[in-house]
Amino acid sequence: MASREEERRARAGALLGEEKLDALLVTNLHNVRYLTGFTGSNGHLLLLRDGAAQLLTDPRYDVQARQQANCAVEIVKGPLFKATGKAMGRAKVRRVGFEGSDLAWAGWKVMEDALPSRATLRGTQGIVEGLRAVKDEAELALIRASCATNSRALERALKNFRAGMTEAQLAAEIDYRSRQEGASGPAFDTIVAGGVHSALPHAQPRARAIEPGMLLIDMGAMQAAYASDMTRTAHVGKPTTRFRRMYGAVLEAQLAALNAVRDGVSTRSVDRAARETLKNHGLEKYFTHSTGHGLGLEIHECPRIAHADKTRLVAGMAITIEPGIYIEGWGGIRIEDTVVVTAKGHENLTATSKALRIL
Amino acid sequence: MASREEERRARAGALLGEEKLDALLVTNLHNVRYLTGFTGSNGHLLLLRDGAAQLLTDPRYDVQARQQANCAVEIVKGPLFKATGKAMGRAKVRRVGFEGSDLAWAGWKVMEDALPSRATLRGTQGIVEGLRAVKDEAELALIRASCATNSRALERALKNFRAGMTEAQLAAEIDYRSRQEGASGPAFDTIVAGGVHSALPHAQPRARAIEPGMLLIDMGAMQAAYASDMTRTAHVGKPTTRFRRMYGAVLEAQLAALNAVRDGVSTRSVDRAARETLKNHGLEKYFTHSTGHGLGLEIHECPRIAHADKTRLVAGMAITIEPGIYIEGWGGIRIEDTVVVTAKGHENLTATSKALRIL
Repeated sequence: MASREEERRARAGALLGEEKLDALLVTNLHNVRYLTGFTGSNGHLLLLRDGAAQLLTDPRYDVQARQQANCAVEIVKGPLFKATGKAMGRAKVRRVGFEGSDLAWAGWKVMEDALPSRATLRGTQGIVEGLRAVKDEAELALIRASCATNSRALERALKNFRAGMTEAQLAAEIDYRSRQEGASGPAFDTIVAGGVHSALPHAQPRARAIEPGMLLIDMGAMQAAYASDMTRTAHVGKPTTRFRRMYGAVLEAQLAALNAVRDGVSTRSVDRAARETLKNHGLEKYFTHSTGHGLGLEIHECPRIAHADKTRLVAGMAITIEPGIYIEGWGGIRIEDTVVVTAKGHENLTATSKALRIL
Repeated sequence: MASREEERRARAGALLGEEKLDALLVTNLHNVRYLTGFTGSNGHLLLLRDGAAQLLTDPRYDVQARQQANCAVEIVKGPLFKATGKAMGRAKVRRVGFEGSDLAWAGWKVMEDALPSRATLRGTQGIVEGLRAVKDEAELALIRASCATNSRALERALKNFRAGMTEAQLAAEIDYRSRQEGASGPAFDTIVAGGVHSALPHAQPRARAIEPGMLLIDMGAMQAAYASDMTRTAHVGKPTTRFRRMYGAVLEAQLAALNAVRDGVSTRSVDRAARETLKNHGLEKYFTHSTGHGLGLEIHECPRIAHADKTRLVAGMAITIEPGIYIEGWGGIRIEDTVVVTAKGHENLTATSKALRIL
């Protein structure tokens, strides 16, 4: 029986045929991992149209590469590009694609010079990323576990919440609890933003005491190499009527977007569901980012859930749904879940309640 | 008086003259930060030979860019490359360098197409990185503070060390204490490796109880954007004579390398000092990496302290000195300090004792 990685390589190889390529040089290390299982920090994968593949890496990964990768492995002393060029020559490939958004110009230049005489290079975009967007059951189980860890970490961290704590301290507490619950680390820099600071969508936690008012927490676990992502906006002390109204509007928008998720629908229609709801509340102009994104081995993957996006959701995609509003001088509210697209709708992997939490 | 960033831009501009370039497109975000103060996650800096500069970024960073960067700022909707091409046209530059190891091929391709008719692009290597290698007093103060945090975090974490703790738990404890002591996060994935696992120079902490034997800890703080780096190898329980002998040899090598550090010496001579010492103990073949590296805004910067390296140390460089030995089936020992090169030798920023610590 073919391994999971072999199946993936066969599917990627079929895509090369469609692109009229004989081979693809995979340099993105997440893609290398996806196609081989190899987790090292240096590697090139030469993938052929028939799914055959050769992994090139350096002597540090001699043992590890042979253990992890179920394909041919070549250990190379020195820079990989020359050896990769020779491997192309041996494989007698002519039309070789490479990952244009990943390969640095300097690497491409060396590669061009090391190329066998009959071969030509062509920049490609998102071939393996497209495959990665749809998760298999084993991957979904890992993302599910990562989401569960993330939710438990929030509960444990908030149990230790106390007046006078700084944003940075609460962020550290969240990361610590997440590691204790099984994460290898955060999937991105944890955001803890109180009061007007929460109006910055990518606020960095400050060494400043959290005061009464809104408190936005955006956190993700990285566990067994898979990411999770969740945002909750709590309130320290009694919320104003305005805050409650705003919170209700964002929650309504988030539920509307979740409701629109289903195999076959366009990502833009999901984005529109959130945006239209906020428009009904006169808040559309404060929703300054897209509605969500795919996640998996990386925290940001295909697809984007955005108004200018043209992809359609496919069952098995793991995505975030995270509308928010950001009002300068007042603050921000965002509510975000990680969900899996299914034939009839979605499975929500984020168990944490979305009822307004008063701290 | 010119700001620190203006002085840096003037010096970088002078280097462009030497390279016969009219301008440099800076895409490496650490370099953008170094030259402007801007900390956003998206930005291009067009630096001219006379030190004038224009920062291009997207609307998310409208307020922030104008606050942080003391140069011209242009807010661009959509991808930056076209706007950067137009900025080149307005600046009437002909020979434009770009950062070949940073710019992805796809970005370069868009840039080539967006280029004003009279301009040409040329890949460059390490122009700003070379300037960054030598730190000013303000930078050294930040690295000093980061090292102090790192040392305090180790002490606090080891106070909580107890039998049965896993490598992953101790690593989480270290990161937590580091944040409490003022770090924004770890400068790299903290290494905690017990017993034979320590024979992997880049071991990942395992969910496995730390047993009697050697325990290698490699940790760094990121604080106020500057990195620190330290490795200590402790021993859980009574060490064997062999371990003590090996530890003594590595310490001797580390001290010999430190002793060789001085303004004007070649980095290879520092590397040789460590390697020769280990050779005297018959351990040279187990020292499988280079002796150290520069650090600053990034954990790995110029110069490399390696036997094939040709740079010379300059007073003000912040570097690590970290010889180690790795014996498969037995384990590894590494001892690492962060130091600053001075006219007469070095200032060691790592206060943690190197006496063998028994846990």
